[in-house]
Amino acid sequence: MDQRISFITLAVADLDATRRFYRDGLGWKPEIDVPGEVLMFRAGERLILSLWDRTACEAEVGPLMSGPGVAPVTIAHNMATPEGVDEVLATAKAAGAPHVQAGVQRDWGGYSGYFSDPDGFRWEVACNPDPGLGAIVLP
Amino acid sequence: MDQRISFITLAVADLDATRRFYRDGLGWKPEIDVPGEVLMFRAGERLILSLWDRTACEAEVGPLMSGPGVAPVTIAHNMATPEGVDEVLATAKAAGAPHVQAGVQRDWGGYSGYFSDPDGFRWEVACNPDPGLGAIVLP
Repeated sequence: MDQRISFITLAVADLDATRRFYRDGLGWKPEIDVPGEVLMFRAGERLILSLWDRTACEAEVGPLMSGPGVAPVTIAHNMATPEGVDEVLATAKAAGAPHVQAGVQRDWGGYSGYFSDPDGFRWEVACNPDPGLGAIVLP
Repeated sequence: MDQRISFITLAVADLDATRRFYRDGLGWKPEIDVPGEVLMFRAGERLILSLWDRTACEAEVGPLMSGPGVAPVTIAHNMATPEGVDEVLATAKAAGAPHVQAGVQRDWGGYSGYFSDPDGFRWEVACNPDPGLGAIVLP
């Protein structure tokens, strides 16, 4: 099995709210937008972020976990500097992220904070000083 | 905010079981392996798949959802042909995936099945005949 991921799909309760947040708030441009069904954004060289209607997802995958608590997954958006992290967190806050955790220095040597999307999925915004990881994930 | 994802992180209960599945079973090569803490695999041009000890994740992110049901996220691995999908599903089954759902024709015109990793995270293995999406996600 090749070592690659093609899609990350998040099951969402209200695609209209999701579109407002990612497209209108964060400024991402949809690749595919089928109202009430699915919204897809290119999120890397060979990667799509897909937001899929929760009911449709359950019909195919089976019953999904629901609260309380945060979904056991995070998505990270890495930046080259702590200032860049703060800027993205400010963008997410202005976009209406229901939860924003300000950037802090981490024990592993980096700086990161979190925001959530309308369904509570956690995005980490991080600056990782490890030059090896930086060389992999930064543009 | 740039339109990109740097990491996808899954919170896992037993990193040793996770390592056996991804490294020994699927044959992926770790980029970083800190026993009991985190396991990272390169999963794209600028993408890392991180498997993070659940307790450490909760300490940083907050209480996580737990069962019953499947985590509301899927990861897809796209292949160029239905035969390729079947081959990856067979690899996952041989690797000890606790759940494998055989490939089937989908209403959207493609062919896909699912497997789960030791924590129940669902991987879709898919062949999508849409030439636009194929051009984005396939090598």
